[in-house]
Amino acid sequence: MHRLLLTVPFVLFSQGVFSQSVFSQRALSRQEDSLISAREEDSLFIGRLSDEVLVNSKAYENLRVLTRTIGGRLSGSPQMYRAEEWGRQALLDAGADRAYLQECAVPHWIRGGQDEASWRAAGSPEEITMDILSLGNSKGTGQEGISAPVVLISSFEELQEKRAAIKGKIVFYNYQFDPHFIETFRSYSDAVRYRVLGASKAARYGAVAVLVRSISQSVDNNPHAGALVYDDSFPRIPAAAIGLRDADRLALAIRQNPTVNVYLRTRAKMLPDTLAHNVIGEITGADFPGQIITVGAHLDSWDPGEGAQDDGAGCVHAIEVLRALRAVGYRPRHTIRIVLFANEENGLRGASRYAQEAFAKREQHIFALESDAGGFTPRGFSFSLSPQKLKAITPWLELLRPYGPGEFARGGGGADVGPLNELLGTTIAELVPDSQRYFDYHHARNDVFANVNKRELELGALSMAALIYLVDKYGAP
Amino acid sequence: MHRLLLTVPFVLFSQGVFSQSVFSQRALSRQEDSLISAREEDSLFIGRLSDEVLVNSKAYENLRVLTRTIGGRLSGSPQMYRAEEWGRQALLDAGADRAYLQECAVPHWIRGGQDEASWRAAGSPEEITMDILSLGNSKGTGQEGISAPVVLISSFEELQEKRAAIKGKIVFYNYQFDPHFIETFRSYSDAVRYRVLGASKAARYGAVAVLVRSISQSVDNNPHAGALVYDDSFPRIPAAAIGLRDADRLALAIRQNPTVNVYLRTRAKMLPDTLAHNVIGEITGADFPGQIITVGAHLDSWDPGEGAQDDGAGCVHAIEVLRALRAVGYRPRHTIRIVLFANEENGLRGASRYAQEAFAKREQHIFALESDAGGFTPRGFSFSLSPQKLKAITPWLELLRPYGPGEFARGGGGADVGPLNELLGTTIAELVPDSQRYFDYHHARNDVFANVNKRELELGALSMAALIYLVDKYGAP
Repeated sequence: MHRLLLTVPFVLFSQGVFSQSVFSQRALSRQEDSLISAREEDSLFIGRLSDEVLVNSKAYENLRVLTRTIGGRLSGSPQMYRAEEWGRQALLDAGADRAYLQECAVPHWIRGGQDEASWRAAGSPEEITMDILSLGNSKGTGQEGISAPVVLISSFEELQEKRAAIKGKIVFYNYQFDPHFIETFRSYSDAVRYRVLGASKAARYGAVAVLVRSISQSVDNNPHAGALVYDDSFPRIPAAAIGLRDADRLALAIRQNPTVNVYLRTRAKMLPDTLAHNVIGEITGADFPGQIITVGAHLDSWDPGEGAQDDGAGCVHAIEVLRALRAVGYRPRHTIRIVLFANEENGLRGASRYAQEAFAKREQHIFALESDAGGFTPRGFSFSLSPQKLKAITPWLELLRPYGPGEFARGGGGADVGPLNELLGTTIAELVPDSQRYFDYHHARNDVFANVNKRELELGALSMAALIYLVDKYGAP
Repeated sequence: MHRLLLTVPFVLFSQGVFSQSVFSQRALSRQEDSLISAREEDSLFIGRLSDEVLVNSKAYENLRVLTRTIGGRLSGSPQMYRAEEWGRQALLDAGADRAYLQECAVPHWIRGGQDEASWRAAGSPEEITMDILSLGNSKGTGQEGISAPVVLISSFEELQEKRAAIKGKIVFYNYQFDPHFIETFRSYSDAVRYRVLGASKAARYGAVAVLVRSISQSVDNNPHAGALVYDDSFPRIPAAAIGLRDADRLALAIRQNPTVNVYLRTRAKMLPDTLAHNVIGEITGADFPGQIITVGAHLDSWDPGEGAQDDGAGCVHAIEVLRALRAVGYRPRHTIRIVLFANEENGLRGASRYAQEAFAKREQHIFALESDAGGFTPRGFSFSLSPQKLKAITPWLELLRPYGPGEFARGGGGADVGPLNELLGTTIAELVPDSQRYFDYHHARNDVFANVNKRELELGALSMAALIYLVDKYGAP
């Protein structure tokens, strides 16, 4: 990061050739006296990390290989195994003292082929196709498919009211992604219950299948996949996500003509569990080798896209933390362990396995940081901390602010570091990138490398590396 | 903006179906006593603006029409006139009391056809084409084109050193967009002098044309256009921007074989000045009709793309400020004037005309806000204020922070409000969006509607509307 201010010839401004629409580049810190303070040392170190990441980062190239040469990496798929081997090698290339695989059983759900759906209004000859994706963990319709009248349902409350009219029908949940929230993860948390729980709630009243409006605010028609969870008190019925424009069209058709028939054919199937691996690379701590700082992301992804923002970005963030700290010659005091977790998307088995083994081995885990919200410009971090403890680390925020993070919030870490917190009481945290574009791509076929910006990706890695440096130097908050 | 926190069933977390990776939605303010404080009133009002913009905004649809049905809008082009008429109608539709055009003369530069360039190393039969765009205001090569040996120049210092070897040559400025800066506008300000001044500096030593590495850090090969300024002490020579990958390849070829010939044909031409218009819409102030708050952006754009981020986004931001304030029933105390400026890109004539007329009419301009850095998530605002005055408005920042802006910085407004500050001493400001992607698109053929995110665009408009509300209510800072 350059510290000098550039002098721009006045002629350029007076002729209006360009506008000086910039924040002043912040001086990293001010030497308040002749001694170099700890704060200044930290800001200089983070400045070196910044130069290293913005000039020499491998994050973008690593992501290219993972997404463009391997692609989507559903648990149990051949791509998953290729990704594990890629991850191990990438960690060694980044400078890990050692890299290894930690075995765990994972669910093995397969899509089984092209999903198909269409609808027809009573009395109309026209069969209108829809773009759908069967939901993860769902069962298929069988070769014949399912054809049944569809019921438009806007909420679980409405399902309850219409419960007498559900039997033998296909339920179409058209719950809207709420645009009012600034943070889109709020809208997601609000809407995702229809995807996760909708099938069993409809099956309870005799529905034969469900369609779910994609959990997204995107302007296109790509359906967004994701997992459901069956409640085994009720029959397992097929379930699929439907693209937003197709959902709008279908809802309109039902409002205009209450008798609309939907045809659905999905080939999804849950196979027996298979083996997968957490991919782990570490640097042994110089002062406290037995105290572990975990930096993680999940290696698996849904199948329609390349798993680029979710969560290839997080994987290359985590690897870059290790690479950048090595590259600037930093010797960590604690053991820093990068973990590419197996099976976040439809089981969280990798995260559970990692925490259980840590618990069984009585490992000391002082901090765990996750990146699973995309490779967008960093806005802050969330921590599993009390307000008081969060306040204690506020001075760190001033060191990070020049690079994007502007807020420390209370909240969880991500899903993959959750079990460490539950089993071992580890303080967990998560990178919070700008959330506006995340659900344009999330679990959809456009979650591809081309939709990741190199600079935004790098700033996320840089912010994480800087935070890990502070945690390593000053101890876990 | 919703204020309730959603309860998510524990089963979803424990099964790791999704991660709660969100900032807590901030409560907008807390009722500290039984009276509603001014601060609370402001936060509630801005919450209403937020709901209005995020649910009912016309910004994205306005941008679609401007970019997809009109397209690039170079000064003097037929599209410019269509855009003026579009802007006037859009302002009326948004609720302006009146909308009108303010005439001004503008330069009329035309590209004149397809730009062509290629290179060949001495002794090689292979002619390698390059993707180029002739620079705005430049003259063309003539029908024959120019063929000459090329000299690789990395900086003006190197040009000075090699001045004896420039005569009769084509100078290729390969100055790199500096990746060290966090704010990319810094890198732009650093590099843009090669585009603006490079032709005349090379002509001084007898160069016959210049190629300039595009002022961008993008990962593609799209050349980035933009204006140059000739110094008429020296001959006017043709000049073109070259795509980054082609620049890398050409530089490598020259390093490997010092004798490389470049062929260049551009058809650019500066025609006599023509007429254009600032498009103005306003709401008369209820308390101070003679005191004007200007909200502006520029309507013209370069021709290769659709002028979406630069500066269609700013235009629809400004229009949305008026629409949203109207839609929530706000009655401004001061006159609020939305200005879509003519000819920012290669002359700034619209901005000069606007300020000159204001000066001649002795209008009282208390504040002017510009948006000309793209429709990305807002990060803050910059103001032409002393540190002391900037500090005085810091409490406003807390009201804006929930919607993205996290910083008030010192700096200029944009280019188009600059003349108001110079001539009338008006306080000027500019929206500062996240800058990481701006120079991927800036002046290039991929500056299109598809590369603008609806939510990011809306948050920029919302932030501007909220700031204008505060300025209108409390007076200019």
